[in-house]
Amino acid sequence: MVDIKSLENAAHGTTVGLTEFLDRVAFNDQGLVPAIAQDNSSGTVLMLAWMNRQAIEQTLATGQVVYFSRSRNALWRKGETSGHTQALVSMRFDCDADAILLAVEQQGPACHTNRDHCFYLSVQGDEVLVDGNAPSVSV
Amino acid sequence: MVDIKSLENAAHGTTVGLTEFLDRVAFNDQGLVPAIAQDNSSGTVLMLAWMNRQAIEQTLATGQVVYFSRSRNALWRKGETSGHTQALVSMRFDCDADAILLAVEQQGPACHTNRDHCFYLSVQGDEVLVDGNAPSVSV
Repeated sequence: MVDIKSLENAAHGTTVGLTEFLDRVAFNDQGLVPAIAQDNSSGTVLMLAWMNRQAIEQTLATGQVVYFSRSRNALWRKGETSGHTQALVSMRFDCDADAILLAVEQQGPACHTNRDHCFYLSVQGDEVLVDGNAPSVSV
Repeated sequence: MVDIKSLENAAHGTTVGLTEFLDRVAFNDQGLVPAIAQDNSSGTVLMLAWMNRQAIEQTLATGQVVYFSRSRNALWRKGETSGHTQALVSMRFDCDADAILLAVEQQGPACHTNRDHCFYLSVQGDEVLVDGNAPSVSV
């Protein structure tokens, strides 16, 4: 059985089986891990959402990013209604296998407000500033 | 009272008070939100950790990133033992105020394995590859 801790000192190039690795991912008590989507071209951090094991497996199988929607309690293929899909470029886990970093090619805006990314609420001193207009028309 | 939802269509430049905003942050049932640390110079996503309200406030007050350690159940000033501190450049919240993006100036490696970042477990087909050696000496 893979021990995630033992991989900390493993040499570059060490590999473990994906299925066995997924058995050790530190899903929370809802079966989820946070997943960060980063634009592969610009490096912009687009959004943070959640994945369960099935979302991970479907993302890898299809090459299109699938999250788990906590509000709808269901798998959610990003862009399935908006068309603003994310093509997977790479998937990485962190040192303790409780977070995922996705490099993606984003189609259109990543945010449901039609902004390019979700992180538009910027702390400025004692205030939070809305940084960027919400386009009224989807691009 | 600030309604986070109402900010979705707010114009660029709209501001709300920080204290009032923090009252509306969607902390989970442990009082935490995930926080992504991104290197301000390179754009590299360094790590994902967690913040409670106090961690957010201390980070903003001191300009040095403070997380909440779930394993130690205590505030954790990043680098307090390793010296690998994170100076805050900016803090942003996402559209539904349940995730934070920190731009930081990272001192030394971000990962406790002494790798530059934590996301070194890379999915490659049916395997997960350790991408990068763990330096034996802290830099």
